[in-house]
Amino acid sequence: MSRGNLRIVGLGPGSSAWITPETEAMIAQATDLIGYAPYLDRLPETPGQSRHASDNRVELERASHALSLAEEGRHVVVVSGGDPGVFAMAAAIFEAIEAGKPAWREIDIEVSPGITAMQAAAARCGAPLGHDFCAISLSDNLKPWNLIERRLAAACDGDFVIALYNPASKARPTRIHDAFKTLRARKSQTTPVVFARAVGRTDEHILITTLAEADPGIADMSTLILIGSSETRVIARGDAQPFVYTPRSARRSP
Amino acid sequence: MSRGNLRIVGLGPGSSAWITPETEAMIAQATDLIGYAPYLDRLPETPGQSRHASDNRVELERASHALSLAEEGRHVVVVSGGDPGVFAMAAAIFEAIEAGKPAWREIDIEVSPGITAMQAAAARCGAPLGHDFCAISLSDNLKPWNLIERRLAAACDGDFVIALYNPASKARPTRIHDAFKTLRARKSQTTPVVFARAVGRTDEHILITTLAEADPGIADMSTLILIGSSETRVIARGDAQPFVYTPRSARRSP
Repeated sequence: MSRGNLRIVGLGPGSSAWITPETEAMIAQATDLIGYAPYLDRLPETPGQSRHASDNRVELERASHALSLAEEGRHVVVVSGGDPGVFAMAAAIFEAIEAGKPAWREIDIEVSPGITAMQAAAARCGAPLGHDFCAISLSDNLKPWNLIERRLAAACDGDFVIALYNPASKARPTRIHDAFKTLRARKSQTTPVVFARAVGRTDEHILITTLAEADPGIADMSTLILIGSSETRVIARGDAQPFVYTPRSARRSP
Repeated sequence: MSRGNLRIVGLGPGSSAWITPETEAMIAQATDLIGYAPYLDRLPETPGQSRHASDNRVELERASHALSLAEEGRHVVVVSGGDPGVFAMAAAIFEAIEAGKPAWREIDIEVSPGITAMQAAAARCGAPLGHDFCAISLSDNLKPWNLIERRLAAACDGDFVIALYNPASKARPTRIHDAFKTLRARKSQTTPVVFARAVGRTDEHILITTLAEADPGIADMSTLILIGSSETRVIARGDAQPFVYTPRSARRSP
């Protein structure tokens, strides 16, 4: 039996123009593709390749399934959106390895980095991530809300640009309002804020506003929110969408 | 005269397998390529395409040159390593636009996201960026050191995974030691630390250690350092390189 392997890849935020050649090559060599159905649906069918589509909420099950197939000698590719290493499937697979069979530690595993939502959102409006920044998931499915609040406060204290992932879902529509309350208490009301929805998809929408004027209620699971640092600037361009950027330089710390 | 444009792209950290198709297409359509010479050297020569190589320290000059050429009707691509939006050329170009001629605001400009060093470094050792993280440049060429110290402290307070860019150069060999002093005073000594050097290049080297045992003196300008959160874990694998990952879940905030 040939030796199996496991590749963990990400398709970027929506456009196939952001899928790296490394990821393309890994997918082409797979005997088995595993992933949340909408990600697999983005890939053309290949004869002889098996597809194992799953629901979004069963990451650990999906990870164990992938590891078992690789152990059996299959060439398995686990497909995420974005970067598989950023709020996506890679961490779930290593969790499953740590908790699972000792033999899983010997599987040939590679992770291929991908374009994550904040990078695509930033590119669409200028260069808001041009200087020190942080990324925080607002989902409290797997971590306590007080840790999220603590991280938001620390991000304000450090004057980081902030990328907010998973800002809201049907199951937790109010947390995004709590988060904005924390941000508004600690940052200038004129701080630039970007709501980037469905970046790279046909229904892409970018809204550039300020912390005072932002309506956090417009965010959904397809939205990535960027909150500026005290240095982040907006360049007006008449009727065209403004540019948002964070300079490479910073004044003395307040 | 045809209308010029400006595209701002990144080649990723070293391997051409990480250059996105969008970036490839933009480069193919350029009349003029502008960038730091080692990045341009990574691209094959194309007949009819002009190259404008420059030194590393003249970002604003390079930005103004690119904008002037685009204004003249050229199809200009500014080439960075990594993601042009993350500690790279995109911010410098928007700085030049804000300070420059009003006509520059009307240039057709697009940024193409790329794989940045922390993503490639993370992929090589597992999934250390699997949960909330921040990215900090340790270069104090353009910002005061006390702001960097403040950001390191905030990153510890928020228990973020930390990616350190530009950890050391010949001109500032000691700052990395100051940074580790701050980190050691505020984080567990067993925190996993990864030194990822020249990722994607033939001389790539990954070192996985702990905050107590790390020798910050080994870092240079080609090194990306990852510092774990309190949740980041190491999975031993006998003689093979261990996996490092940060779980999707977190215990109650300390």
